[in-house]
Amino acid sequence: MTAETPFPDDICATLFAPKSVAVVGASADPTKTGGRPVHYLQKHGFTGAIYPVNPKVEKIAGLTCYASVSDLPEAPDVAIVLLGAARAADAVRDLAARGTRVAIVLASGFAEVGASGAARQDDLRAAAGDMRILGPNTIGAINLADAIVLSASGALEGEDLPVGAISVASQSGGILGALLSRGAARGIGFRRLASTGNELDLDIADLIDHYVRDPDTRVIAAYVEGIRSVDRFRAAAERARAAGKPLVVYKVGRSESGARAAVSHTGAMAGEDRVYDALFRQVGAIRAQTFSDLLDVPAMLATGRRMAGPRVAVLTSTGGAGSLIADSCGVAGLDVPELDAATAVRLQEILGEEAPMTGNPVDVTLAGVKPDIMTAATEALLTSESVDGVAVVVGSSALAQPEIAVGAIRAGAARSDKPLIAYVSPHAPHIALDLNRQGIPAFTAPETCATAFLAASARSGGAAAAVASAAPIASNLSAGPMDEMAALGLFADHGIHNPGLRRVTDAAGARAAAAELGGRVVLKVLSSKIAHKSDVGGVKVGLTPDTVGPALEHMARGLAAQGLPHDAFLVAGMVGGGVELIAGVRRDPQLGPMLLLGAGGVLAELTDDTAIRLLPITRADAEEMVAELAISKLLAGYRGAAPHDVPALVDAVMALGQLAASLGDRLSEAEINPLFVMPEDEGVVAADGLVILT
Amino acid sequence: MTAETPFPDDICATLFAPKSVAVVGASADPTKTGGRPVHYLQKHGFTGAIYPVNPKVEKIAGLTCYASVSDLPEAPDVAIVLLGAARAADAVRDLAARGTRVAIVLASGFAEVGASGAARQDDLRAAAGDMRILGPNTIGAINLADAIVLSASGALEGEDLPVGAISVASQSGGILGALLSRGAARGIGFRRLASTGNELDLDIADLIDHYVRDPDTRVIAAYVEGIRSVDRFRAAAERARAAGKPLVVYKVGRSESGARAAVSHTGAMAGEDRVYDALFRQVGAIRAQTFSDLLDVPAMLATGRRMAGPRVAVLTSTGGAGSLIADSCGVAGLDVPELDAATAVRLQEILGEEAPMTGNPVDVTLAGVKPDIMTAATEALLTSESVDGVAVVVGSSALAQPEIAVGAIRAGAARSDKPLIAYVSPHAPHIALDLNRQGIPAFTAPETCATAFLAASARSGGAAAAVASAAPIASNLSAGPMDEMAALGLFADHGIHNPGLRRVTDAAGARAAAAELGGRVVLKVLSSKIAHKSDVGGVKVGLTPDTVGPALEHMARGLAAQGLPHDAFLVAGMVGGGVELIAGVRRDPQLGPMLLLGAGGVLAELTDDTAIRLLPITRADAEEMVAELAISKLLAGYRGAAPHDVPALVDAVMALGQLAASLGDRLSEAEINPLFVMPEDEGVVAADGLVILT
Repeated sequence: MTAETPFPDDICATLFAPKSVAVVGASADPTKTGGRPVHYLQKHGFTGAIYPVNPKVEKIAGLTCYASVSDLPEAPDVAIVLLGAARAADAVRDLAARGTRVAIVLASGFAEVGASGAARQDDLRAAAGDMRILGPNTIGAINLADAIVLSASGALEGEDLPVGAISVASQSGGILGALLSRGAARGIGFRRLASTGNELDLDIADLIDHYVRDPDTRVIAAYVEGIRSVDRFRAAAERARAAGKPLVVYKVGRSESGARAAVSHTGAMAGEDRVYDALFRQVGAIRAQTFSDLLDVPAMLATGRRMAGPRVAVLTSTGGAGSLIADSCGVAGLDVPELDAATAVRLQEILGEEAPMTGNPVDVTLAGVKPDIMTAATEALLTSESVDGVAVVVGSSALAQPEIAVGAIRAGAARSDKPLIAYVSPHAPHIALDLNRQGIPAFTAPETCATAFLAASARSGGAAAAVASAAPIASNLSAGPMDEMAALGLFADHGIHNPGLRRVTDAAGARAAAAELGGRVVLKVLSSKIAHKSDVGGVKVGLTPDTVGPALEHMARGLAAQGLPHDAFLVAGMVGGGVELIAGVRRDPQLGPMLLLGAGGVLAELTDDTAIRLLPITRADAEEMVAELAISKLLAGYRGAAPHDVPALVDAVMALGQLAASLGDRLSEAEINPLFVMPEDEGVVAADGLVILT
Repeated sequence: MTAETPFPDDICATLFAPKSVAVVGASADPTKTGGRPVHYLQKHGFTGAIYPVNPKVEKIAGLTCYASVSDLPEAPDVAIVLLGAARAADAVRDLAARGTRVAIVLASGFAEVGASGAARQDDLRAAAGDMRILGPNTIGAINLADAIVLSASGALEGEDLPVGAISVASQSGGILGALLSRGAARGIGFRRLASTGNELDLDIADLIDHYVRDPDTRVIAAYVEGIRSVDRFRAAAERARAAGKPLVVYKVGRSESGARAAVSHTGAMAGEDRVYDALFRQVGAIRAQTFSDLLDVPAMLATGRRMAGPRVAVLTSTGGAGSLIADSCGVAGLDVPELDAATAVRLQEILGEEAPMTGNPVDVTLAGVKPDIMTAATEALLTSESVDGVAVVVGSSALAQPEIAVGAIRAGAARSDKPLIAYVSPHAPHIALDLNRQGIPAFTAPETCATAFLAASARSGGAAAAVASAAPIASNLSAGPMDEMAALGLFADHGIHNPGLRRVTDAAGARAAAAELGGRVVLKVLSSKIAHKSDVGGVKVGLTPDTVGPALEHMARGLAAQGLPHDAFLVAGMVGGGVELIAGVRRDPQLGPMLLLGAGGVLAELTDDTAIRLLPITRADAEEMVAELAISKLLAGYRGAAPHDVPALVDAVMALGQLAASLGDRLSEAEINPLFVMPEDEGVVAADGLVILT
């Protein structure tokens, strides 16, 4: 921690590196869950004070066991509470009274099991007072770098847990254990790991913040079931981005089944998965697309090597595996280009071929067993000007002399800082282990090779969105849906024009309004009570000053016949020649207000052509939203048609964000549908819209 | 082989089970590639005669070594040729002369290296005469069930290669080795494996045919870089379907990079990847979406257990892993439903809970360490009426007593024939090995669990498409593009109507034609020389008998001014009220004629809303094509609109297929664009079209 840190009170610094640890409910049997923490603390070499607490035992593993928390010789920095849910609150109360800084509560049976558990969790919170809590329903915290393990995770049975630059924040203890044991088996090292469970107090954002400040953490891996405070998560993720530390997130709950499972597991609210996608993108986090990516992508990024471009070279002694890597890279959007002349000649020399070798993958066939050749070819590819990253295939021929194969690859890596990875084709876990330990990420799935290169290509650029300083405007507005005239008026106040609107109550007024607006007009019933005007005969298009009056009278009679109330009518100009979009603001129950932009009309229904961002957004976000829509092809001027006014669309998206900021929590929903994007320099036109306030 | 087999001459039966094997170019050093085949034949227990051939050696591994093929005491059933590309043809000639039935040629350096190699491959073919060839560029053939290995694959170094019900056909020897070694390490057993390499003679289709006839092969796994004879592959795959043997195919070449790599690897032509998708779907083959699926999906299918519906239950002792499985299943389109009341009560009893357990995943937490409970819960879920398949999570708690955990799961499986799989959460390869050996497919990726269930859900129904017996009609047609009138006429001959067409040459004729057709008409230039009529002012819509004459004269002047020739003009009725599609026939250079159907108009350009099938197709194929289009929502009658004439669209698709059959190889391309699908019972209308003949 430095003086500049915005977190003077970093409780996680204490959590991961206490000088003294109480273990409440410790068992003398190291094979039981209650016996593991003391056993693991000793086994992994904790040098501070350990205070087991258990009234029924005198000594545990050579340590004095205390009958109660009040008997402890000092207030411990950290306490591990191993008691069941029913008894945890009492222990927490005693620990808080004693001045303990943070308690790790392992018991499950709290908010994740429903109402009775939630009440128990409230009791736990009250018992903690000012003392900080990790959990409940956590497996604890592990600081491998300093040999401090405060956890009951069975993954700690392992002897040889490699220390690395990856720190882990997980909402599940089981997942933490799976990552730790799978990583250790592959030679992928971790630095700090903790599971936050039900997040009564410390949460994922706290851990990310801590890892950002930990100088030796290079990459942060997070397993997320649901984010409780999006603002804190967003701020922490932004700090990770600013610090240049990639944040890789696996978020469960893409499907309804998964979301339901996650809720019942940690009691987290799920929120809509697509909004999480938007959130991760906005903060520059990498979303792991498969569970194995949560280990593989950090392993790649921990090397610190980054792709300067998309060009991959594949070095192989077995053609099929080379095809697999090349194909996976191609599918992922990477290039596997022909090699430049200089590199081709260099390979020709190295391999003693008859002609320059421009082909990629570079298939060395039987030469793959000769270490000098593999080293030289790896180096030639890594230092080639037409290559941004290299994948070396480890084929069956390496099985006979694994050390030599690994050594050859590593030697080739030394002269370059471009990414170098290995694909292990046969079953050879010992080779993958060796390679990973020596800093060469080694994978067994061709698709993972592509994912790793892609992750190393990602630019973490982009600025945090500043919350617009907006004057609150909601005070004089009443709750509920606004009528269309008021809604379009509010949009117009924020610079989003409409086709010209007149509120009328009778035929004469309608005729005058139509004459004033000029051209053809639309007549619509004006009522905050009618949601779907078209369905009740409340919209008539293509009217003139002569026909609008009779149309109004006909519409009024029709509504009356259906028993529908109306306040007045709206006469509006007609819009032609634009591309139809939908823009709006909605509120995710968990993640807050978000902006939606999508294709309108028939396209809206046939395709899922929408873009989402959490508010606030930057102008770059707004531009990206437009660009990611399929309909942006139409906006750009499709098939020789004139381009449309995209800058005005971006303005309108920003204006909607500003409107949402102004209305704050009072805005339940806003939507412009259709929003016509007119030809270049002609702006956008909001032809219909709604605003619902709370 | 039975008398009914359509393959009396099954050379693969000899290939996989020879009584005598010559090894030409055998080395006495078993660590060299040339020394491996004899070593592996002996090591894996071949009981037939082995004849090494090498003029420089007298004995190899205790066997008499012959100086030449002519010195052999008998004609061998199979010969393994280990000589390099330059000398292989001579050996093959000698073997053929001696009466050898099939030669396995390992050398690379043939068609896959370009023109000089292709010439060498032609020499090899000539040398073989009537003798059959596997390769060149193959790693050989392996019959694990009968302990006959005719291969140099390093994967045969393994001691304990489990025998199972999966047979493998691979175009790459390295991939064959990777599958064999990876499978063996996981306890997944194979029956027969061969790599076909450059497929000078025996190809993937021959192997599939052989595996269909092998009574103990249950599942066929194929690694494909490019299919040389689509008709033979299609027929073989259809026979596999008819035999109820799932065919799982990994096809490389989804991307341009991958396709290029595959071509340079085995010299296979790539063809368009989407057409392969269509082919695999039409023959009921399962396309492996990742390389690991090529092992995982067969492992699942080899159990013979199939899902009767999409409902998965997850049994777990660790909540996070349960969420992963549930989420992956949900994303894959499977259900993870709440459990029925009877099952919930049964679980309550088993687990001693306070209330019925309807939740799914079923989280048994600490009870997960008790084998009786795990067995009973597994059985309860497998026999539940609301469950079609069960995934059991093996958590860290199983690490202490792996045999008990595996035994508990296996015991639970006995009373049901529904699919049961295991997800191994921590690193525990010994547990996965045990499970697979005992017939419980065990996976380490949650996504794979979902893929496996999905594969076990696939219906292999569907009939082979019969080639329509069509009278050839091409004889009187000239090569090149037909003009629009002729093309639409040809479509009309096959029952696809058009809006009424009149060929005219002057204004008077146009006026008469318009009057005859009635309503508004379109005027178009008629010329097989002009591909894009609109671009040159060759289309004018909305004309009447009064305006069509002057329009024709104006159009003629415009074309003349551009120096464009025209034969005549076309007056056609105008089409309104339909949904716009495109239907056509194209020819993939590798896979032959295919049918395309897609959204028309703007949708065609903004979305990739198309369906493809190889010809011939069944009516079910045509119906599926329509159903898989996004635009089928519009056809069905979107948002209360009237439904459109989908049966007529299916008729039109079938008619196009019939047209293609009639024209045979003479059809280069046919397209109807736009094809309007009219409201129900009003048919379809081909408004424009082209046909190109060769």
